[in-house]
Order: sequence, then structure tokens, then C-alpha cells
Amino acid sequence: MNISDLRKAYKEKSLTARSLIMQIKERIKIHEDNPIWIYTLSDSELEPYLTRLEECEPSSLPLYGIPFAIKDNIDLEGIPTTAGCPDYSYVPKESAYVVSCLIEAGAIPIGKTNLDQFATGLVGTRSPYGACQNSINAKYISGGSSSGSAVSVALDMAVFSLGTDTAGSGRVPAAFNNLVGIKPSKGILSTSGVVPACRSLDCVSIFAKDTKDAREVFDVAVSFDTLDPYSRVMPKTQKSVETTFSFAIPKEDQLKFFGDKEAEVLYKNAIKRFEEMGGVAVEIDFSPMLEAANLLYYGPWVTERYVALKDMIETKPESFIEVTKTIILSGKTKSAEDYFNAEYKLKVYKRQADILMDKVDFALTPTTGTIYTIDEVNADTVELNSNLGYYTNFMNLLDFSAFAIPAGFRKNEMPFGVTLFAEAFEDRKLMELGEKFILKDSNV
Amino acid sequence: MNISDLRKAYKEKSLTARSLIMQIKERIKIHEDNPIWIYTLSDSELEPYLTRLEECEPSSLPLYGIPFAIKDNIDLEGIPTTAGCPDYSYVPKESAYVVSCLIEAGAIPIGKTNLDQFATGLVGTRSPYGACQNSINAKYISGGSSSGSAVSVALDMAVFSLGTDTAGSGRVPAAFNNLVGIKPSKGILSTSGVVPACRSLDCVSIFAKDTKDAREVFDVAVSFDTLDPYSRVMPKTQKSVETTFSFAIPKEDQLKFFGDKEAEVLYKNAIKRFEEMGGVAVEIDFSPMLEAANLLYYGPWVTERYVALKDMIETKPESFIEVTKTIILSGKTKSAEDYFNAEYKLKVYKRQADILMDKVDFALTPTTGTIYTIDEVNADTVELNSNLGYYTNFMNLLDFSAFAIPAGFRKNEMPFGVTLFAEAFEDRKLMELGEKFILKDSNV
Repeated sequence: MNISDLRKAYKEKSLTARSLIMQIKERIKIHEDNPIWIYTLSDSELEPYLTRLEECEPSSLPLYGIPFAIKDNIDLEGIPTTAGCPDYSYVPKESAYVVSCLIEAGAIPIGKTNLDQFATGLVGTRSPYGACQNSINAKYISGGSSSGSAVSVALDMAVFSLGTDTAGSGRVPAAFNNLVGIKPSKGILSTSGVVPACRSLDCVSIFAKDTKDAREVFDVAVSFDTLDPYSRVMPKTQKSVETTFSFAIPKEDQLKFFGDKEAEVLYKNAIKRFEEMGGVAVEIDFSPMLEAANLLYYGPWVTERYVALKDMIETKPESFIEVTKTIILSGKTKSAEDYFNAEYKLKVYKRQADILMDKVDFALTPTTGTIYTIDEVNADTVELNSNLGYYTNFMNLLDFSAFAIPAGFRKNEMPFGVTLFAEAFEDRKLMELGEKFILKDSNV
Repeated sequence: MNISDLRKAYKEKSLTARSLIMQIKERIKIHEDNPIWIYTLSDSELEPYLTRLEECEPSSLPLYGIPFAIKDNIDLEGIPTTAGCPDYSYVPKESAYVVSCLIEAGAIPIGKTNLDQFATGLVGTRSPYGACQNSINAKYISGGSSSGSAVSVALDMAVFSLGTDTAGSGRVPAAFNNLVGIKPSKGILSTSGVVPACRSLDCVSIFAKDTKDAREVFDVAVSFDTLDPYSRVMPKTQKSVETTFSFAIPKEDQLKFFGDKEAEVLYKNAIKRFEEMGGVAVEIDFSPMLEAANLLYYGPWVTERYVALKDMIETKPESFIEVTKTIILSGKTKSAEDYFNAEYKLKVYKRQADILMDKVDFALTPTTGTIYTIDEVNADTVELNSNLGYYTNFMNLLDFSAFAIPAGFRKNEMPFGVTLFAEAFEDRKLMELGEKFILKDSNV
């Protein structure tokens, strides 16, 4: 199930959106033991979308009849938004800006997906709706916080899905479910109608099975929103990829696989594959990225999570999962002095990182150094969660664009992923490179 | 005394840098009762600069033999930096980046100028070295915080000078001494080697008697400094001015002249003059600018002043002037929550302001609504100082470029100034417009 096949089927009238939705509902039922969804739309809730599609030509809408899933911290008109916290629930009067863009383009919302509560976590287990299971092996975590959004696409309940990505939530679940994940440049997808995690850093992300689909969704979703003060205009011109290129990789001693030897081999294979594509790997000192990553949870940006949920955490602290509450409350005691000291440090890391990135076309890291089972994470959620952010936490603080792609499987069939990243607004270049990488593999 | 006359005289050998410096030293002596300077270079300290110039051709250096003054919060190699606080004094081993650029280009540093202590103030009276007197009437304030830098140029002790401008310190003294003042786009002049006020907002500014000189200095001073994490690349392309253009002015009820009727007339005359030049005045709602202005001292950015001076204010509070100490200490108690709430507000104001500014080529305001005597300011330093920032405080928070220019005189010969501002990096466009405005006047 991908966009071009569906488009073809709609055009040939061998499929209707209505019948596709019925098939999807069956698939959802098969997997109902896995808490992928917090809410799926009823027939009557779906009806207006289907009626509208029946009134237009498939060719008139770029995403005509394409089913998609929405992480439950992103508003869909008339459907509850919980952000993974039942007490927080509200029914929005209008859809998030980016959801409206997609619906306007013909996409059909299937439902709202499970997530680590308030998008705080990279594991997918921190939800009162249950730990979302990996799409390939139910013993493993799905990754998070956009857990259900990734798994719903992996299990063909949606062609694409929206997640959010502040610290890695749009990349880690992509890696764990063999998907591509676009972590767009900050501000090019509106965050109006998205429950804030760290407002100054939050991005809406896109999951899909392949780059082609992801790019089509991206093209519709990128739209300047004057009402989102963090939105930025995506420049029209973009760098393209030469037949020879260079890419940065961390120094050997800065790589962490947490004992996962297979992941290490898969990462080295990915480097080789990019080299075979004409790339020259350049080992660089990743210290600025790693230092910036430390600022995300230990620095003052965690205060943004507190600011976003202050009223509720002060009046109904019992509504929060314990680990989430602890993280969010840690933002309460930071001072403006802490903030500025961290900003000054971050500015230095950004300058250093930019100088490094200037020398290459992009950087290549594992998306995560390893993967865990649900039991492992339940035994030590803080440290294992932290391990999963090693290659992801710095991305938004340093204002990079990123694209997470599949890069092979371990012997136990669990997938491994790598992430390409570059300066802001180089999203399309990363997709072009990622697509070549993936297609090269499938041709082997 | 301007750059082109000096250049001509040097070329024709009718003048040497050595003899010019002697004349300047005499002028400095005449005004020694006015605390313009905190430090002037001795003959032996000047010698290396003069010797170097004698070894090159005047035509080989763009600022050959051009004397300049340096605000005493900007480092000059081997000369004490006090920032207006004797106990803070240190002798820097190297010059500030921007000072080095100017010296490299042939400019001669005359000395370090008086300022409101730690660049905290717009009056020029808040200095243990004495209240700098206005260049036209000694009863009046010079404006600040770059007080001595403005007065030294106005009194022909330097062709140009460097100030700093966080809240208006490079514009207010220009208005009060009939000078032009460039408040450059943030980051295009390095702040390496500058004592921080609000590091995230500080700009080095330029005073000169006319736009032509200011622009020549600007051309040398604009230089990307990789070691200043706040530095930004000045784009090569720039908007130019059409023969017809539009400019924003605040709504009538948003203008404040604090009872200064003559200033009001002079402002209206300036509007008329721009209209005669082909401009169309567009009244806009200045609320976003005025709201942003309030954030500068009442919001968390004042914490940057505390962070910069924490060690000293905690251990030697008696080293500070009372009003300065009070302001700086007010930054101590702000929380990170305060910071982010203010950032979110500021982002909204910035978006609103950008939408307004998109409709016009630039905006035109008074630089200050009025001017005060030293006695008046001494009687009520906080409120009168605050009045002087009404049109200036928002500029750096909203990331605008600004150019302050003379716009006539009151009957008592005290000058009035207006400020042109526009989006970041439109500095040259503002200078072009300001120059036309000034030349139009002199042709009348």
C-alpha cells in the first residue's frame, strides 16, 4: 500500500476510498491487542471525508484517498486530543494547521495514535494506554514518542502518519519499524494545533514506508503559517546532490552501540554503501553535537515542558505518569540565569557544528545505537531511554534537518536505521540521498 | 574633518597623521572639563600606529590616518577597559575584533570614551567619571550609554567612533549631538572583545558626522567572526531604494513627545521631507514594537546583564553605581519559566511586526521624543531614562537594522533626530535613504 499504487487503483476505479477504509478497519481489528491507537474514527466520523472524496476526481487532489494516522498530540477537528493523558483530553474545534493541509489535499484521517505521554520519551512504553509493541516483534519496543504513528504505518493501517519530533520522536520509531522518518527543519511544518513539548524546538514529523511517499506528503505539509510564530519559510532554492559527495561520521570513540555488535556492523555497512554511491566519509569530532544533546534534558529547555503543562501538573499531578511528571517538574526550578548560560554554550556548539558541517554535504549516524525489549525498558526506563537519544537529542537545538532511513536487519529480524542530517532547509537533499541509498539496497 | 577631506590632504601631503593627532590632542585639552574620555592614548602609545602609517602609502589603506574613538566597553590592546567602572578595569592583550579591523584598515585609536556604567542607561550621566555633557549645550545630557563616543565625534576629536547599542545606546547620543548613528543588524559587526550587556542582543554601533563616513567605516567593520557565536554573515545582495517608496509611521496616539512640541513639529517635518522624496507614509499600529520594548527591561533579558557581571556584583556590589546595581540585580530572580513565557510573547510580536514591516520599505520614528538637561535627569534618572528608550528598546529584540539621523534643531539649538529601521541586513538601504534625506535638507 503506497501512494502511487493507490492513486493508480483510484484512477482505474479498481478501488474506492470507502472500500480501502473497510480493509484498514479490519487490519486495525486484527491488531487490537497492540495499543497502537488511542482513538479510531467511527463510520459516521469518517463519512464527511469519504463523501467529499466521492464528489471529486481522484486526479484533482494530490493525496486523494490516502489514509493517514495522527499522533494524539496533534489536533483533529471534533476528535479528542489526549497527548497520552486522559485527564488532559479536549475536543478541538479545528484541526492542526498541518492536518488541515493534508485533509484539504485529500488524505483521510484514520485516527489518533498512542504516544509516550506528552511526547516525553523515546521508548513508546510511557503511556496509560499501554506500551505500544514493535510492528515486527511484539516483545520489542516500538520506539517513541510517536509510537502508534510509526507502528500503524508499518502494519499497513495508514500509508503515512504524522508524529512530532523534539528530541528524536520522529526518528527513533522509524528506525525500530523499518520506516523512513522526516524530521523537518524547524518551522517549515506548522505546529499550530500541536500540544507543545518544547515549543521553541518542536517539529511535526512524517513517517512513511518509502521516501517517495514521504516526499509527497512533505510537499503538501510544508506551508508557512503566519499564526505559528515559530514557522519559517522554506526557501525555494535547495542544494542538490552531486555524483561525488562527502559525509561526516563521528570519530570511532564517539560511536556508541551499547554492546549491540550487529548494529555496529550495520552502521559500517551503511557507510560503505554511501561510499559505493560516490561518497567520501570524513571522520569529524562530534563533541559539539554531543554537548548540545546534553543541554536538552539537563539544561533549561525542559522548562518549556513545565510551562506548557504548569496548570495541570500543579493542580492534578496524579494525572501524569511518574517518570513524565519527574522530567516535567525538573523544569520548574531552572532560573533565567541557567537559561542564558545554556544559550551561550549552545551558540558556541552551533558555531562549531556549523564549521564542521560546512566541510561535508551531510552527516551520517546510527539513528539509535541499539534497540530494547519492552521488559528491558520497564526495568530501567530512564537510562535506556537516554541511550536511545544519543544520536538524536541535539538535532533541533542545533537547527538541523534530518532524515531517518532503514539500513538493514539484525539476525533476529529487528531493523536498524541510520540518520542523515544537514543544515536547516536541506530536507529535500537528504531525501534525495536517502532514496538513492534505499534503492541501491533493493537493487542488490 | 571628514574621511574624504583627510584622504585628500594625506594624498597631497598637506597633512600627516602625526600632525592631525597633535591638533586633536589640543582639542581634547580645550574640552577637558567635559568627561568625554576615560583614557586618551599617550604619545608613546600612539607611536606604533603612526610609525606604521608612515611606512605605507595613504592610498593603500581604506581608513588611512582616520582618528577614531572607542567606547570604553570595547577592548583596545594594551589600554585599560573599564566599562565605566574603575574596579572592573582590566588591560586586554588584544583588541576587539572590530577594533582590529579598523586599525588594520589604517584608523588611529585616540582613546577610550566615557559611558553609562556597563552600558546600562540612555542618558550619559551614570558614570563615576562624571556626566558627559552635550556637545552643543553643556547643560544638556549627551545621551548614552555611548556618551563620550558621540561627543568626541561631534567636537571633532575623532572622525568616527564606536559605541555599543543594546537598547538604544548608539542612537540616542547620535540624536542629541546631531550625528548619524548606525545600529547595525545584530551579528554583522563582531562583539568579540566587547564587555557584554545583553550578549544575545548587543551590537557595536558607529557614530559619524555624515552617512558617507559612516558607510566607509561600516564597510570595513562588517566582517564575519567565527569566534563570536552571535556573529552572522551579512548577505551580499541587498534591497535598494526605488524612487517611490513607502514608510511606516506609528499611529498618532502611539507617538510620545513628553510635552516637547518642537520635537513633534520636527518629526512631522521629517515625514513631509520623506514624502517630498517620493515616499508614502503609512500609519501602522506600533503595538508589537511597544510590547516588545517592555520586555527588554521588565522581561528576562535583564538577566543577561546579571550573568555578565555576577561575580563582581555578588562580591563587590559597592563598585557599582546605585541605579546600575539595581537594574542588574533585578535580573537575578528571573526564572527559566519567565524566560520562555517572554520568548513566546516576543515571537508573536516579531511575527506581527514582520507582517507590518512587509508592507513598507522602512519605518520612521523619532529617535527620542524629547531631550533633557543633566539636572532634570539627575532628579529622576529612572523615568526620564525610560522615556528616552520609547522608540529604541524594541529594535534588537525584534532583530531590525536601524539608522539614526539628524532631523533639525529646536529653537534653543538642541538637535532632534529620527530613526529609520527595517528588517535585519537592510542596513545599506537605510543608509541610502538617510543620506538622501540629509542631502535634501542641505540643498534647501
